[in-house]
Amino acid sequence: MRWRLDLSYDGTGFHGWAAQPGLRTVEAELELALSRVLRSVEAPRLTCAGRTDTGVHARGQVAHVDLPAGVLDALGPDSDADQLARRLSRALPDDIRLGGLRPAPDGFDARFSALRRRYVYRLCDAPAGPDPLARRHVVHHRRALDVPAMTAAGRGLLGEHDFAAFCRKREGATSVRTLLELSSARVADVVETTVVADAFCRSMVRALLGGLVAVGEGRHDAQWLTGVLEGRRRQPQVTVMPARGLTLEEVVYPDTAGLAVRASQSRRRRGEGLPEMSTPAPER
Amino acid sequence: MRWRLDLSYDGTGFHGWAAQPGLRTVEAELELALSRVLRSVEAPRLTCAGRTDTGVHARGQVAHVDLPAGVLDALGPDSDADQLARRLSRALPDDIRLGGLRPAPDGFDARFSALRRRYVYRLCDAPAGPDPLARRHVVHHRRALDVPAMTAAGRGLLGEHDFAAFCRKREGATSVRTLLELSSARVADVVETTVVADAFCRSMVRALLGGLVAVGEGRHDAQWLTGVLEGRRRQPQVTVMPARGLTLEEVVYPDTAGLAVRASQSRRRRGEGLPEMSTPAPER
Repeated sequence: MRWRLDLSYDGTGFHGWAAQPGLRTVEAELELALSRVLRSVEAPRLTCAGRTDTGVHARGQVAHVDLPAGVLDALGPDSDADQLARRLSRALPDDIRLGGLRPAPDGFDARFSALRRRYVYRLCDAPAGPDPLARRHVVHHRRALDVPAMTAAGRGLLGEHDFAAFCRKREGATSVRTLLELSSARVADVVETTVVADAFCRSMVRALLGGLVAVGEGRHDAQWLTGVLEGRRRQPQVTVMPARGLTLEEVVYPDTAGLAVRASQSRRRRGEGLPEMSTPAPER
Repeated sequence: MRWRLDLSYDGTGFHGWAAQPGLRTVEAELELALSRVLRSVEAPRLTCAGRTDTGVHARGQVAHVDLPAGVLDALGPDSDADQLARRLSRALPDDIRLGGLRPAPDGFDARFSALRRRYVYRLCDAPAGPDPLARRHVVHHRRALDVPAMTAAGRGLLGEHDFAAFCRKREGATSVRTLLELSSARVADVVETTVVADAFCRSMVRALLGGLVAVGEGRHDAQWLTGVLEGRRRQPQVTVMPARGLTLEEVVYPDTAGLAVRASQSRRRRGEGLPEMSTPAPER
């Protein structure tokens, strides 16, 4: 039986999402907590919508896990999904929050059923730096940023393109993605850049931000950024911005009827067959 | 020459504001940074508006410091207040932010000229707990809170009263204060309680919150809380809530003409003469 998990985490203390031997990761903490709650020797395997890098945060991460059919009965008589959620919640460290745990609808796949992901990158260009209470997820940028210029430049990248210029190259995988939003706005003394796409390649959001910041500082113009995209190769002028400014805010799924259709579309489109599902490639 | 400092800090890493031998405090870090920037052997003494306890945060702390008249010339030719601010800012750790540093108007005293202080206490009563990115300044409360009941109870405490029931007793000092606002509101999944008074006794905000939470949980009613106030002594049912939920948000001063008048009023009213100014008593 497949379960959907809604998760938030402070990425500061994690080597990203994906389990790695000897390192503290979100996936490893979740698997450990799940195996404790279920008293199982073998940790259940998780699949998430956005494999966040070291230091990247999440408020709207979604994952799925397949658990044995009798999992609720094993917790005790009359136990329900809420009870499982409460127990798992208590077993988690305080830098991970379980916002929800419920049976997934038919055809649901946290990674491949997703229609789009929304990330927000936060920079503070005030000379004094960000509010100290927000400094773990807001990066201090020491040069003033022209926010309307950033938004104008972002507009030129919207649509379906090969984003190879903003991705870490990965053999045999496409870097064609559909960018749905890339816009910056000042919220108090923070420049928030919203980035929405059907999916992302690794380090893509932070490289896009590096491009926007070059424009925001006045070092380059919007045309230059479009040129970078069209060049389809990484350029040294495009910095990959620090991880801690980035938060995965939301993952959007189709309604129940569309879940399985979307999942098979995504698998086909990204050139990845079913066998790869158990070891999904990093998306960020 | 007197300077005004506007400060924010994440209280997590500090043993409060006040300098104490061998402990990391906000005051000690500021004095260290100031003496570094001014290359002075003797650290200048600071006075602040709200002497926050261990773990309490600030977004709107105000302090003053008296520096030698030639301080800007000593920084180099044509140096100005902005340059001093930038240097001090760079000398500070990243959990303290210097929002402003400027010459104080005549009669300004960060502590005694203040008309009122505004604190906000943040609780999250959602079962899953607070957003992990906010967990350093939002306390997880495991019982659901009736927010309108809290606000109604808070109304009964407004005005000028002896708040001895909510203060740590201190010999020879009055605990009469004027409470101007005490109201709770739900902001997303956080219960924010705003507390405004002319000044506060030590642990007063957190004890007021303990009283409101007892009402919010339905353990007591508004009348009980008024009774506690009138009893004028600490009661075991009134918990002093954890420090990390508390943030000093704002300190309000009169316009320039009113500064000195207000300072002498405050000193008289709190039964403290001029000699005590150099060692102000903890207010929270």
